[in-house]
Amino acid sequence: MTNTEIALAPWRSPLARALHRNRSLIYARYLQLATVRSDGSPAIRTVVFRGFRDRTNQLCIITDRRSEKIPQLQAHPRAEACWYFPNSREQFRIAGSITLATAESGDAADQAERSRLWQNLSDPARLQWAWPEPGATRSNDPTAFTPPPPDPIAPPASFVVLWLNPDWVDWLELRGNPQTRTRFDRTAADWQTLDLNP
Amino acid sequence: MTNTEIALAPWRSPLARALHRNRSLIYARYLQLATVRSDGSPAIRTVVFRGFRDRTNQLCIITDRRSEKIPQLQAHPRAEACWYFPNSREQFRIAGSITLATAESGDAADQAERSRLWQNLSDPARLQWAWPEPGATRSNDPTAFTPPPPDPIAPPASFVVLWLNPDWVDWLELRGNPQTRTRFDRTAADWQTLDLNP
Repeated sequence: MTNTEIALAPWRSPLARALHRNRSLIYARYLQLATVRSDGSPAIRTVVFRGFRDRTNQLCIITDRRSEKIPQLQAHPRAEACWYFPNSREQFRIAGSITLATAESGDAADQAERSRLWQNLSDPARLQWAWPEPGATRSNDPTAFTPPPPDPIAPPASFVVLWLNPDWVDWLELRGNPQTRTRFDRTAADWQTLDLNP
Repeated sequence: MTNTEIALAPWRSPLARALHRNRSLIYARYLQLATVRSDGSPAIRTVVFRGFRDRTNQLCIITDRRSEKIPQLQAHPRAEACWYFPNSREQFRIAGSITLATAESGDAADQAERSRLWQNLSDPARLQWAWPEPGATRSNDPTAFTPPPPDPIAPPASFVVLWLNPDWVDWLELRGNPQTRTRFDRTAADWQTLDLNP
């Protein structure tokens, strides 16, 4: 993957402001990510925002390779995220395509970023990637959830990074009457900003 | 639509408990609803939980007929909701099919419920259904967002009720180590409960 974008998208500053205004809430860094199942139905779950990839507008998310979203995204890389900020009462809907970095991804920059994100995790957080298969029938093995600590340097095969590369953002501010709604569309060269009815 | 279900599904009591434990947060009644666009991509937005339909396990949501989710749901009635409760740190993912009640829906019980939900709204909340088309280019008309108050008794054509009828619920409790994850699958006769790896 090449990182050719360096200009900050126009929705980045309202999003940075929202993160700042809601910084007292740990869950203001949680967002919901929608994907599509193999039968064409929607799937959704809460994920944690891990920052933007350097010099890009791509949102970084980490996950387990064995989770259902991986085959979903491999078959249909289009995703949409919804991020609600309770303190400032605003919502960002962020649609785009997702790139994955698994253990097999060939790109050296992707692998460096994957290692960096793994190394940034706490020891207890890293343990989860050594747990039994997420979503499978609960393991009866009493030691299954107390595995030996994984290597803190080299990420295990179960550790996957997702980057959501937005091309459409819908920002709704509930404060004010009427409310304010702004859409950002990525064009070939830049972003177009449009005021919408709420 | 006939309401034949009267048994409370087994996920109803943990969900009721979550609503109770998070009742201090007004936004604990907000959830994210994922649908599928006509091109097969996912769409997602925050909606407000308006309670369960009487004697059913169906979640009630109200919306504007002119919103994008209406044609999406008419073409593909399958949806999935994600409901994160910050105080108790638990997530419910709720998948099922959606039934709509528009002004033209023939069912008398649906229309009675649609009227009841309209009448329950506050005067300022009702105004939104008389605003210009949601998501269209912002209206230049300075009076567009101060329309005459709509009839508080008879719902306007723009007022639509959605019922999400779940057949699959995935409940994740982040508290505790390891976390607890339970799945509920609707069967022909009842619900099956399964303990999963988190």
